[in-house]
Amino acid sequence: MSTQFHLVTGAAGFIGSHLVDRLLAQGHRVLGIDNMVRGVRRNVETALRHPGFTFIEARVDDAAAFIGLISDATGRLGPINMVWHMAANSDIAAGTDDANIDLRDTFLTSFAVLQAMRAASIPRIAFASSSAIYGDHGLRAIAEDDGPLLPISNYGAMKLASEAAISAAAESYLERAWIFRFPNVVGGRGTHGVIYDFLNKLEITPDRLEVLGNGLQRKPYLHVADLIDAMTFIVANGNAKVNYVNIGPEDQGVEVRFIAETVVAEAAPAATIQYGEGSRGWVGDVPRFYYSTEKLRRMGWRPSQDSAVAVTRAVGELFVERRQPAR
Amino acid sequence: MSTQFHLVTGAAGFIGSHLVDRLLAQGHRVLGIDNMVRGVRRNVETALRHPGFTFIEARVDDAAAFIGLISDATGRLGPINMVWHMAANSDIAAGTDDANIDLRDTFLTSFAVLQAMRAASIPRIAFASSSAIYGDHGLRAIAEDDGPLLPISNYGAMKLASEAAISAAAESYLERAWIFRFPNVVGGRGTHGVIYDFLNKLEITPDRLEVLGNGLQRKPYLHVADLIDAMTFIVANGNAKVNYVNIGPEDQGVEVRFIAETVVAEAAPAATIQYGEGSRGWVGDVPRFYYSTEKLRRMGWRPSQDSAVAVTRAVGELFVERRQPAR
Repeated sequence: MSTQFHLVTGAAGFIGSHLVDRLLAQGHRVLGIDNMVRGVRRNVETALRHPGFTFIEARVDDAAAFIGLISDATGRLGPINMVWHMAANSDIAAGTDDANIDLRDTFLTSFAVLQAMRAASIPRIAFASSSAIYGDHGLRAIAEDDGPLLPISNYGAMKLASEAAISAAAESYLERAWIFRFPNVVGGRGTHGVIYDFLNKLEITPDRLEVLGNGLQRKPYLHVADLIDAMTFIVANGNAKVNYVNIGPEDQGVEVRFIAETVVAEAAPAATIQYGEGSRGWVGDVPRFYYSTEKLRRMGWRPSQDSAVAVTRAVGELFVERRQPAR
Repeated sequence: MSTQFHLVTGAAGFIGSHLVDRLLAQGHRVLGIDNMVRGVRRNVETALRHPGFTFIEARVDDAAAFIGLISDATGRLGPINMVWHMAANSDIAAGTDDANIDLRDTFLTSFAVLQAMRAASIPRIAFASSSAIYGDHGLRAIAEDDGPLLPISNYGAMKLASEAAISAAAESYLERAWIFRFPNVVGGRGTHGVIYDFLNKLEITPDRLEVLGNGLQRKPYLHVADLIDAMTFIVANGNAKVNYVNIGPEDQGVEVRFIAETVVAEAAPAATIQYGEGSRGWVGDVPRFYYSTEKLRRMGWRPSQDSAVAVTRAVGELFVERRQPAR
């Protein structure tokens, strides 16, 4: 891959910041944008010392403002070859309480990115979509071409809306699009998700961990290092106009109980775990989720670790990170 | 069906106004809302003489304003039992040139309707979706549960976004939702579409009709009377939480050439027809579109006429309508 200039939205977030590091390591120049609502300065500290990295703190959800920002940036820094659109609301439950959150942060960001790409003639987009677009298909191992798509959270709905807008843009002005349907992703710099929540709870009540639901929800987890690997692999090898690929481990995941026990063992071995009732942790939560990663495997990519190893590694990384003072 | 109070958005539009007439004829009370951008006063003239009809000229796309409007309306008129959300941009090509049009008129209207339903505790929604959510599946007769859903127009993208938001709302607070995936619909009061465009063109150049594309695009057409029939049938018989049904005729449609010839025969028999090149009339146009109406047939509904009869009847209705002076 020749050296290119990449734009990463959500650059100070969990996945965005790991992606920035990878792109810089590959020799590319990177423009990172983040509104710093969920983004964390520490996540881009290493990148900020790299001469190929430019960081702008700005909102992405206002199309007119974002078009202006990208126009200015390309004027100063040169044309952008590709956008990695990672910015989104990451708190699914908050988006269920207030639909405006996912409208603004999960969908209008995508809309603004597409508008800016059209205005600045940026030809290629890679987009962080989600398994949440599928909704609840029970025990069926859902593949990319399966339907119906009936998301049960506003987060999933606004990710599907973003996919749809990208698909229409590909018909009209984009050269190529890669849509990644993410599983649950874990690892250092995580700013949300079940491990993060459990560590937070144990900080407040070190003697007990209260788990929403009965803990039997089983989901696949991928480590962020494998995720970034898969993303760059798909972009390098996905040659359709619109490529849409489930990313995930090959196993059927681990239960919330396993995660709770792993977190407690690492962070507060004396704590007791208290489970709630019901199979769903919150409205919009999917109790069991299997999806097929056969398409990605057929393309030639395999993860380096399974859900259990990914979770265990991530618990360690997140626990250590918390004990480091913020600089 | 007992007498209820229905809200119809896009009430002065093509399909909305026919729906209002039907609901009033069934003995219901109806609140019609339209921003009168594409709506036409004449379409609701009959309804306005009916004591059960209330009409408000207002925008639907601003959620905060719409919540206030519905709160006021229910305060004055009583609780609303059900929303029929018909308001949308109907000019697909305009939405391809400027994505803001479908964002605002096709999606943000749906978002605002859902927000207002939540605020006013309106439990049921019927929604005018579209076959455009499927994208281009070639010669495959696409059914409701088929994927992938990769719309090629912003109109289709924002209809899919609306479906997704309704699906998430059904998980959270709606009691029931009916999603109709419309085919091309024709008939009196039509404010857009190929027949309408051809009649417009012949008014400007009565000696010739220029057709975009080679005229071999084949699509199914349903008459609006059959459409309203199907909609009320689906609401009466669709008992799932989220019902999503393709509506259409059972035949494989007619070619644009047939429509051009029918319009010319009715409106300007001496005109010559000039065809363009290529199989698509515009970006976002799907050259051939078959979709399965098997699900609707299995529910027990059949159309009263095929595409050719529907088009011929609609051409007559629209031609006669144009010659009546606006009151």
